[in-house]
Amino acid sequence: MQKKILSVLIALGLNCCLVSGVMAAETKTDKTSAIKSPLMDEAKKNFKPIPAKAPDFKNNPTSKDKVELGKLLFFEPRLSSSQLISCHTCHNIGLGGSDTQETSTGHKWQSGPRNSPTVYNSVFNIAQFWDGRAPDLKEQAKGPVQASVEMNNTPEMAVATLKSMPEYVEMFKKVFPKDADPVTFDNMAMAIETFEATLITPDSKFDKFLNGNDKSLNDQEKAGLKTFMDKGCVTCHGGVNMGGDAYHPFGVVAKPNAEIMAGDIGRFKVTQAKGDEFSFKAPTLRNITLTAPYFHSGKVWSLKESVEIMSDAQLGATLNEKEVSDIVAFLNAATGKMPKIEHPIFPASTDKTPKPKLD
Amino acid sequence: MQKKILSVLIALGLNCCLVSGVMAAETKTDKTSAIKSPLMDEAKKNFKPIPAKAPDFKNNPTSKDKVELGKLLFFEPRLSSSQLISCHTCHNIGLGGSDTQETSTGHKWQSGPRNSPTVYNSVFNIAQFWDGRAPDLKEQAKGPVQASVEMNNTPEMAVATLKSMPEYVEMFKKVFPKDADPVTFDNMAMAIETFEATLITPDSKFDKFLNGNDKSLNDQEKAGLKTFMDKGCVTCHGGVNMGGDAYHPFGVVAKPNAEIMAGDIGRFKVTQAKGDEFSFKAPTLRNITLTAPYFHSGKVWSLKESVEIMSDAQLGATLNEKEVSDIVAFLNAATGKMPKIEHPIFPASTDKTPKPKLD
Repeated sequence: MQKKILSVLIALGLNCCLVSGVMAAETKTDKTSAIKSPLMDEAKKNFKPIPAKAPDFKNNPTSKDKVELGKLLFFEPRLSSSQLISCHTCHNIGLGGSDTQETSTGHKWQSGPRNSPTVYNSVFNIAQFWDGRAPDLKEQAKGPVQASVEMNNTPEMAVATLKSMPEYVEMFKKVFPKDADPVTFDNMAMAIETFEATLITPDSKFDKFLNGNDKSLNDQEKAGLKTFMDKGCVTCHGGVNMGGDAYHPFGVVAKPNAEIMAGDIGRFKVTQAKGDEFSFKAPTLRNITLTAPYFHSGKVWSLKESVEIMSDAQLGATLNEKEVSDIVAFLNAATGKMPKIEHPIFPASTDKTPKPKLD
Repeated sequence: MQKKILSVLIALGLNCCLVSGVMAAETKTDKTSAIKSPLMDEAKKNFKPIPAKAPDFKNNPTSKDKVELGKLLFFEPRLSSSQLISCHTCHNIGLGGSDTQETSTGHKWQSGPRNSPTVYNSVFNIAQFWDGRAPDLKEQAKGPVQASVEMNNTPEMAVATLKSMPEYVEMFKKVFPKDADPVTFDNMAMAIETFEATLITPDSKFDKFLNGNDKSLNDQEKAGLKTFMDKGCVTCHGGVNMGGDAYHPFGVVAKPNAEIMAGDIGRFKVTQAKGDEFSFKAPTLRNITLTAPYFHSGKVWSLKESVEIMSDAQLGATLNEKEVSDIVAFLNAATGKMPKIEHPIFPASTDKTPKPKLD
């Protein structure tokens, strides 16, 4: 049974660059080493390296100006009604693209329902949010801006804010030249999507291994990779993103404890399909050592403990101490190179800019 | 009387680079123009340009590593008990070094007592905070970390957080090599001070004028500069920072309305000296068009209205429409060039890192 799922998902994994309208980008081939090994061959069947270049979108072609506008909007606290919260608040690029909260804290200090997923490499996910309710990053970007527990804004107010600043109006005109009214909530989301697509982290030790450098992983990391594949972790955490490409019940074999589940029915809320009860999108394990706490509820802070919980819940296999340590070492080797992002300088508010509302 | 204050403060202004242990840094001389004018001569007596290079400190010598560590700490949300608020939250380098709140919003969504002053060019202020209660930036940096309405942390917890991450320990060791125990709350503040000293904004149109380029200001901006000096605004807003170098009662001639005063006794709370009732440090007017709302209470959103309030309250002179517009145009010409700051990538939390506390 596990093997069957495995083979299906390997196939999915191999094609995962083609999901969500993302066009495959050039991958970097490591020419410094031509050593091959059975482990490398097996790994290449299960995973793909993070490409060196940000992917482009068929329905949202990127450009330098669009990415720059998207960066401004991603960091822009005035897109929230309080003018205190931006996309970056819960997806801090300095903190692995996430925050350090169990579940994110938003407007009026309210706690949201789920743990903030990393923005890094999120472009490679099959869909966005833990339950996949947004098909892509541009749909995702519209959610938190409007959620009452997050940025608590309305599309109308967000657009009014952007239109109140001539520099933003000019930038939208330049980026969306064919639009009669370029400053829209949709275009805001399109620009944010192209910026977020640049937030990819290639060149981890594991990526170098996948690109052919056998020496980039040490013995413990290789042992961890082998265990990760042999025990079936790769069933849900393969492909370019080591996850992010399908939904799975949590857990397949045994339910984790109630505190970790936090009463969350997951994808069932989106699809109402019986099989989707307690299902979640398998999160990417890229840069996972940077994004504690773990799971949709953020109830577990230790990566070691998380690996143990997953092997019990999803595989029904109790891993020994060495196997767990090896897997943690391997996961750490999948921490990539963060892009260099210069903090934006925003246009100044004007007399027409809506005032912050704290209540 | 006004002339007397004026001459005293001109003298103060000419020496303002020597305050707070800040050593004068090299200034950039514009050689492209040698045109002189009586207006330029008068301006040079009253103001000094922002230097091209960040100033250094006698008691806190700067270094590349110290600035880099200071940048990490300035942006570090884990220095707050909630792990949500950093120095940068209220001093956003993209928003003129401030926020857009009347008074800053902090821990548990509480509103603080005063408007957030800009961090840009704050190194040139005679002291820090609206009431000058911190003599320099390193003392200032310790305040908000501990304030219950801001970051709500303790020095012990901040140090425990930093010590829990080996990369921070290494950086502190490198930056403070003579210290047996380098990770301290004081050293944290020293590093932040050197980073904040790099947040200076030279090369405004007005700086170019002060450096000898007569053409860098247009006729309206020159008219504004002349009015600004003739009417006595320069009495409190001269020197390198166009303010920030002395305390003055608000107002000298007539008290502004109660909403603007917000019951704040200002520097009196610090000194208990009778003359200090309702006195505040004159804020810098550098980049003032970027940092609405205005005054210690943040009750006024329009710069034009603020100029009118100040002329009534401080000078007892009602300016006409043209004079106000000219001054606003001149102030806009004092918006400088923001430094390029790459957002830091923080060390990962470890099992020893204290968990965020939201209550």
